[in-house]
Amino acid sequence: MNFKPKFSDFKQKVEASFHRQKFMELINAKLVDVKPGYCEIQIPYNASLTQQHGFFHAGIISTIADNAAGYAAFSLMEEHSSVLTVEFKLNLMSPGDGDLLIGKANVLKNGKTLTICRSEVFIRKNGKEKLCAASQTTLIELKNKPDK
Amino acid sequence: MNFKPKFSDFKQKVEASFHRQKFMELINAKLVDVKPGYCEIQIPYNASLTQQHGFFHAGIISTIADNAAGYAAFSLMEEHSSVLTVEFKLNLMSPGDGDLLIGKANVLKNGKTLTICRSEVFIRKNGKEKLCAASQTTLIELKNKPDK
Amino acid sequence: MNFKPKFSDFKQKVEASFHRQKFMELINAKLVDVKPGYCEIQIPYNASLTQQHGFFHAGIISTIADNAAGYAAFSLMEEHSSVLTVEFKLNLMSPGDGDLLIGKANVLKNGKTLTICRSEVFIRKNGKEKLCAASQTTLIELKNKPDK
Amino acid sequence: MNFKPKFSDFKQKVEASFHRQKFMELINAKLVDVKPGYCEIQIPYNASLTQQHGFFHAGIISTIADNAAGYAAFSLMEEHSSVLTVEFKLNLMSPGDGDLLIGKANVLKNGKTLTICRSEVFIRKNGKEKLCAASQTTLIELKNKPDK
Repeated sequence: MNFKPKFSDFKQKVEASFHRQKFMELINAKLVDVKPGYCEIQIPYNASLTQQHGFFHAGIISTIADNAAGYAAFSLMEEHSSVLTVEFKLNLMSPGDGDLLIGKANVLKNGKTLTICRSEVFIRKNGKEKLCAASQTTLIELKNKPDK
Repeated sequence: MNFKPKFSDFKQKVEASFHRQKFMELINAKLVDVKPGYCEIQIPYNASLTQQHGFFHAGIISTIADNAAGYAAFSLMEEHSSVLTVEFKLNLMSPGDGDLLIGKANVLKNGKTLTICRSEVFIRKNGKEKLCAASQTTLIELKNKPDK
Repeated sequence: MNFKPKFSDFKQKVEASFHRQKFMELINAKLVDVKPGYCEIQIPYNASLTQQHGFFHAGIISTIADNAAGYAAFSLMEEHSSVLTVEFKLNLMSPGDGDLLIGKANVLKNGKTLTICRSEVFIRKNGKEKLCAASQTTLIELKNKPDK
Repeated sequence: MNFKPKFSDFKQKVEASFHRQKFMELINAKLVDVKPGYCEIQIPYNASLTQQHGFFHAGIISTIADNAAGYAAFSLMEEHSSVLTVEFKLNLMSPGDGDLLIGKANVLKNGKTLTICRSEVFIRKNGKEKLCAASQTTLIELKNKPDK
């Protein structure tokens, strides 16, 4: 789909919000790409992010899916709005066994109040990417509530 | 509901698995209670766990909801089984604005292959607990695949 | 939880809306109970409502779960509002093998714009009820948009 | 994605199962297309399928999304298997205001036990199709349990 942002600096606004999230720093998440209605985030492997088998924890996988969706939606919102996740649903399809987690989200519907996104999370191992998880997320736009 | 564990040391098995999850250590999560078909986890506030407004990040809230569900289910599985989350759906109802996050999960149905749980996540502020999020989760039992 | 309706005739308003849904008539669904934040619907068995094994179709099970949630939420909305389902997630736990399907929904959170509900669907066979499905639903209140 | 069916008559098996679902007959649903990992179902408008505003009822929209997902998954299962929906999550994005409802489902992951699908539901009005709903579904393969 072809979305139009509502003001020119949407990308800077997404980046500034991302960098205010201290949890992104703790897990070393990188905001890799932002386009109107699209966002990509990556998280390199680190033993501190693992579950009992040494793979990326489901909590990290849901964090990257949710955050990519949140910023894909935020890229289409008004300048003085903030965004909240209403709910999301995530299917875990393959273990997070690899060196890089890649979350990509696309907006499906950008409504006046609610925005719906789908995310896919890939796990890269030995240079090959594999579908690890997929989610569907509902976000709400809070108008005239700046993000900071 | 009244569930019967399948072997006597189910609680030690849950605790051992929880302590092998390095991500739980990173975010300082505590396994507070395990009963047959029930699990409670708590995470004290720390600035490193926050989103852009300084509240618990949705990724942390989904981590506690998912992990409590996983271990509630695991408490009813066979001795030599391991557990994987198939999928979950989480509604975020109030901001994670407080000093302690409390996740409680109960098994709704313990089937031969799949187990369904519901979790509630509460946020405590000034000694008062408030419903912050609620989830519904599907888990799968992998028989004869020990957890470690 | 203890919810307060926003006007005295909330029950008549729910009943009138239910009876305007022609699909409820087609599948012979009955509105059995409405309280503030609660709704119960029943559907007697009929061969025309079945899937390939002769049990209640998942589409009927999701209809009863969604509709009970919708009217539980509607019972707490303002007099001149209408309600729409934003999304729901349903786990099917036992086959719909029985003579009566019973859907019960409770409001978890009644917010200014969004309301969150949980439903349980029971199947009755030989006088015994069994948990058949469970859902979690998000609804939106459209203010000053009367239901008819 | 490019999926390979496990036996040559997968399409006939899907069609035979669809036609055993009496609920499909009641709502006049048509199985329009079946390919390996893909299924399309259509339901023409009929006043008996409506909610309080005269549009397709959410129960019908979830039925078409779920059934398309079920048969997309079933097309990849073994000859003597049957299929059950474990759970699904559906976002309703536009009212079902039109003359034809079109459900299309694709398999995302076809695992040994579980299969994950995504469905999109479109509503056609005056010859134009609009995205009405989207879902994500988990299905389970029951081996050596023939469908009839």
